[in-house]
Amino acid sequence: MSQRVTILDVAADADVSIASVSAALNGRPGVSKDTRARIIQSAERLGWVPSVRGRGLSGKRSYALGLVLARQPEVIESDPFFAGFIAGVEGELQSRGYALVLQLAGRNEGPDRYRQLHLDHRVDGVFITDMSVDDPRVALVTELGLPAVAINSGPGCAITSVRQDQNAGFGELVRRVVELGHRDIAHVAGRRGMIHTRQRIDVWRSTLHAAGIRPGSLVYGDFSTESGSRAADRLLSGPGPAPTAVVCANDLMAIGFIARASSLGYDVPRDVSVTGFDGIHLGRYIRPALTTVVTSPRELGAEAAKTLLKLVDGQAVADLDIAPTHLLERDSLLAPMR
Amino acid sequence: MSQRVTILDVAADADVSIASVSAALNGRPGVSKDTRARIIQSAERLGWVPSVRGRGLSGKRSYALGLVLARQPEVIESDPFFAGFIAGVEGELQSRGYALVLQLAGRNEGPDRYRQLHLDHRVDGVFITDMSVDDPRVALVTELGLPAVAINSGPGCAITSVRQDQNAGFGELVRRVVELGHRDIAHVAGRRGMIHTRQRIDVWRSTLHAAGIRPGSLVYGDFSTESGSRAADRLLSGPGPAPTAVVCANDLMAIGFIARASSLGYDVPRDVSVTGFDGIHLGRYIRPALTTVVTSPRELGAEAAKTLLKLVDGQAVADLDIAPTHLLERDSLLAPMR
Repeated sequence: MSQRVTILDVAADADVSIASVSAALNGRPGVSKDTRARIIQSAERLGWVPSVRGRGLSGKRSYALGLVLARQPEVIESDPFFAGFIAGVEGELQSRGYALVLQLAGRNEGPDRYRQLHLDHRVDGVFITDMSVDDPRVALVTELGLPAVAINSGPGCAITSVRQDQNAGFGELVRRVVELGHRDIAHVAGRRGMIHTRQRIDVWRSTLHAAGIRPGSLVYGDFSTESGSRAADRLLSGPGPAPTAVVCANDLMAIGFIARASSLGYDVPRDVSVTGFDGIHLGRYIRPALTTVVTSPRELGAEAAKTLLKLVDGQAVADLDIAPTHLLERDSLLAPMR
Repeated sequence: MSQRVTILDVAADADVSIASVSAALNGRPGVSKDTRARIIQSAERLGWVPSVRGRGLSGKRSYALGLVLARQPEVIESDPFFAGFIAGVEGELQSRGYALVLQLAGRNEGPDRYRQLHLDHRVDGVFITDMSVDDPRVALVTELGLPAVAINSGPGCAITSVRQDQNAGFGELVRRVVELGHRDIAHVAGRRGMIHTRQRIDVWRSTLHAAGIRPGSLVYGDFSTESGSRAADRLLSGPGPAPTAVVCANDLMAIGFIARASSLGYDVPRDVSVTGFDGIHLGRYIRPALTTVVTSPRELGAEAAKTLLKLVDGQAVADLDIAPTHLLERDSLLAPMR
């Protein structure tokens, strides 16, 4: 398939910013006459064809909202957040004839993809998930004037945000484990470098410190079921005493941990309590039924879609905090027997 | 939010088919002069604005493929097929800069949504899933000249198809249950009226008949975990003897069945064997680990995307059958103890 020449290529060829290319090709101010000439030369040489959708369309609606995930495809399949979030968004868009434009991108391509969706007039607004500190997409959508809603952004985010407090429920869970009498409480963390991973480690550690308990072992997984299984090998097969409770950073790792612990001859929860995070549907049906923190990705998606549609309509909207995550206690958590 | 006037509204107002409106407004043959005048009058009165994206764009690419699901939003969250299929599609589109336009529709709105995506030039091609017998979308995409790939279509489908044989693995599973010595084999079916529900009932029944065994009880669920749990109540709490094996039409129902059977005091698989269908990831981690039929929604999505991109490029493509589903035997299936 032949690749379309984009303004990214033109910008690289003319050695200018994408904003300059955009200004030059759209006849807007902000570029010198010489630069404009150079850009147009580059565009012609490369055979750049203006996106018809992207020209003369100011004010026209695309009737689509965009979501770019800078993640691997597997995440849609395995991460309960995204399936729930997309379902929540679609539930709101369905009756309005809006579509969701879903695009996967490499880890650092996210901003470019959002820019391109906007330049091509493919979307009227975008959702921004998986936010990092100083996320470059915030500045980008502001610069583009593109309606955007940030999901679970940190405090002080410059754009409209829809959030659910993730830490509230996790702190509640760790306090409950302590209250039941556990004193050796390990944590199976998520993938290194992710904000949620860091947050859960901080909550686990600070909650234990506040209770005067020294945090137990910390093992990193990657949020996959397999990594929970491997964590069980590390925490339960070692020479030292096993922890009496293991709080995992998500449900899938907890399920992997429980399965492997059983294979190693441990009775969960009598020998070791295990907890998760997310509140996935199947947590109720595994045995022992999983103690977890209930999150609401679908509600988050629905509220984010409602908020974004209002923004697209030019209405003023406030940040929204939906009800915080909370502890759901089931059979996999018990007072320690030893 | 103000509603955009669509050609559906114009068609209703002028009391003509959408095809006629499309022909009239695009200056194509096929409508009489009087009808054309009436249509244009309706369009003007309603304030219909032609989609700029949809005009003068012949030959231009949208760089997007469309998928319309005539299903409830929950299906994206709970049906392992769709998450896997979308992940497979996205994996192929990612490196090419293509987006997936995802839209949910009411059960009978599917064809109209596909038509609209095409008229708006939002997509270069579409995937057609959840096919029914004589699916109206097949005629539609043919009429529109819209590149399309049918997923798991029946034999003799008029458009390019990518399929995985669903029955092969299920027949293999039922034969294996018989081979182990089971003679009272119940079936927990999916939602009434769905093609897959019907197919699995037929395979269950015909495989048993071929083995000279009378089919056991048939209970309808709806593919949800809860309905599997309710099926266990019906099959295991009744006055008669419980079946020695229960083959369920999907994994979620099997997991719900096992959880409820355990609550009722049954040991799975010693008292009753239970099997699923789909091969979801967590089936390996529940206990007893689930015997199931492995399907490949991600591979199906990836192959469907490759095929559709070729069609969009004008290449000739043949129908594709990926490797059929197959039995995956794990702990939840055992020879009967009685």
